[in-house]
Amino acid sequence: MMKDILENLMIERIAKNFRKAPHKIHEIHETDAELIDIASGSDNYLAITTDALVEEITSGLYDDPYLIGWMLATVNFSDLAAVGADPLGLLISISYPPELNAAFMTKLTEGVSDACQQLNTFVLGGDTNQGKELFLSGCAAGLVPQKSVIKRIGAKPADKLYITHPAGLGSVYAFLRLTKQDSMLPKPFYQPLARIKEGKIIRKFASSCMDTSDGVIHTVDTLMRLNSCQFVLEDNWDQVLHPIALKVFSAQNLPLWLTLAAVHGEFELCFTLSHDNEKNFLQEAAKADWTPILLGEITEGEGVRIRSKGRLVPVDTASIRNISEIAGSDPKNYVNKLLEIAQKVEIG
Amino acid sequence: MMKDILENLMIERIAKNFRKAPHKIHEIHETDAELIDIASGSDNYLAITTDALVEEITSGLYDDPYLIGWMLATVNFSDLAAVGADPLGLLISISYPPELNAAFMTKLTEGVSDACQQLNTFVLGGDTNQGKELFLSGCAAGLVPQKSVIKRIGAKPADKLYITHPAGLGSVYAFLRLTKQDSMLPKPFYQPLARIKEGKIIRKFASSCMDTSDGVIHTVDTLMRLNSCQFVLEDNWDQVLHPIALKVFSAQNLPLWLTLAAVHGEFELCFTLSHDNEKNFLQEAAKADWTPILLGEITEGEGVRIRSKGRLVPVDTASIRNISEIAGSDPKNYVNKLLEIAQKVEIG
Repeated sequence: MMKDILENLMIERIAKNFRKAPHKIHEIHETDAELIDIASGSDNYLAITTDALVEEITSGLYDDPYLIGWMLATVNFSDLAAVGADPLGLLISISYPPELNAAFMTKLTEGVSDACQQLNTFVLGGDTNQGKELFLSGCAAGLVPQKSVIKRIGAKPADKLYITHPAGLGSVYAFLRLTKQDSMLPKPFYQPLARIKEGKIIRKFASSCMDTSDGVIHTVDTLMRLNSCQFVLEDNWDQVLHPIALKVFSAQNLPLWLTLAAVHGEFELCFTLSHDNEKNFLQEAAKADWTPILLGEITEGEGVRIRSKGRLVPVDTASIRNISEIAGSDPKNYVNKLLEIAQKVEIG
Repeated sequence: MMKDILENLMIERIAKNFRKAPHKIHEIHETDAELIDIASGSDNYLAITTDALVEEITSGLYDDPYLIGWMLATVNFSDLAAVGADPLGLLISISYPPELNAAFMTKLTEGVSDACQQLNTFVLGGDTNQGKELFLSGCAAGLVPQKSVIKRIGAKPADKLYITHPAGLGSVYAFLRLTKQDSMLPKPFYQPLARIKEGKIIRKFASSCMDTSDGVIHTVDTLMRLNSCQFVLEDNWDQVLHPIALKVFSAQNLPLWLTLAAVHGEFELCFTLSHDNEKNFLQEAAKADWTPILLGEITEGEGVRIRSKGRLVPVDTASIRNISEIAGSDPKNYVNKLLEIAQKVEIG
């Protein structure tokens, strides 16, 4: 099942050359961050992850240095959030071309620093080099209590599917930026914060969890494949989507569910809850002034469906996920291919 | 003192934008890897570091994919070795251009995998992206007993200065590669192994330690600055230098001490030992079938000197270290500037 996704083939082709670490407590694809048994009397696993900003910069999706820095922190801490980790901090590896001015680098480091500060965490260190292109990679480390591990696997039929906060800002930002219509929107309208705080509540109750770094459809498709269940999304877009996403996609006459489909996500967490845990989870979330959003439910079967006017409409999520591998880095090509697939899905 | 080195200015300019992490047990420049107090009942600190291969690839210094992969692991694990850490493993972040073929990537991952296996450690995970240029960054994590921390600071006058194994292969490799004379040498003659095993002995006895990733002179200069002492190197090149380094630089009529000066190092560890610890250290090293090499000693004062025919010859290590910032990425320019400085040092 995981092999239907082209990106996974690449990951597996590389991973098969490496021996499995005996102190790694999970298999390939099963977590957003690596979970490592550090033994030596600790009650915690080490959570560690690395994530680079590459396509986001070469495509022009991010060009503001502050946003670039902010996102370098966010993409890494979001992986920690998805395993419920308390962050220890971030390492950054930056390669920059000689013509890049000092003001750009200052803004970039401010973005990194502010994102860390918002999460009450720190830049621990890094490496800088001069290269031909701007290249940024991060590595975030954190700790997870051994008794509260959440992975992407564990979801079961009858579980409910939740998302931490409204979705869609990532794809709206990408759509407006790449079609050069972002000028009229308030800035910064896209500056996602990794959901560390929510992850620490989720880890106590959820059966599975994954971040939406590549959009909700990507995440739900992955959870569906790993858990061998059917995932059904409700079409209550008014609650699920961010008001800006609703407004922009309505004005453009685009199907609203497509805000969940683009490969640029909003860095929320999607997670599943058994019936037994749902009530206690919602009570603890409410105490933290947080209202998680119901996305749908898990049933027997396979595939992703959207429940619309009483019907279960299948969504070809594999094709959606594979667009970016096929369309290359041309955003117009990407949007056209996405709309082609969308025409086959009979919901508004 | 640290500010006389141009590279440090850049690091400090970036670092000053970040808050100091309260659980980081050292100050800027003081260690090769970050040392993090992870509390929660552990007797260990987390050691964590990130290092990218950039100039090494753009300059053509490394072009064999197996060596590139091997070095990606080595540069990161060498930083762990210098703080005496037991590795938990490596994360790799790879961005590659679309035209790169699968065979290149397979060789590269084999290099990473073999270097890990030699150190009895593992690739824990990673991130792959498509970009315009090949870019590789790594992040290594490990554990250090809290009672055996070694930093770059702690050296005192009368301490002895040691290196783990003979030096000079890094600069000989760079010299031959960049002047296109590497074809006649046996392959692989440059494939350094991070000194993890030695680091775990060193951590019990040394007063300071740092790896020679940028060459011995770079390392000794840094230790000299951080410890506010004078570092005196003995000119017993027959013992200090690798036989290949001796042979190549003799044949080229180049001063032998210059094999210590180029910015491309051999990934040994330089470390200092008090008189009280030296004997026990050497005994334990002998038990492990390892013969550390005496490089020199630490005295009151400042600067780096080479003892030659009874005289203490000063070496302008700041100028040597700053060549790469001034000469840019042109290797000819670099070698010429290095020879200019060498002419002022009156030893053979």
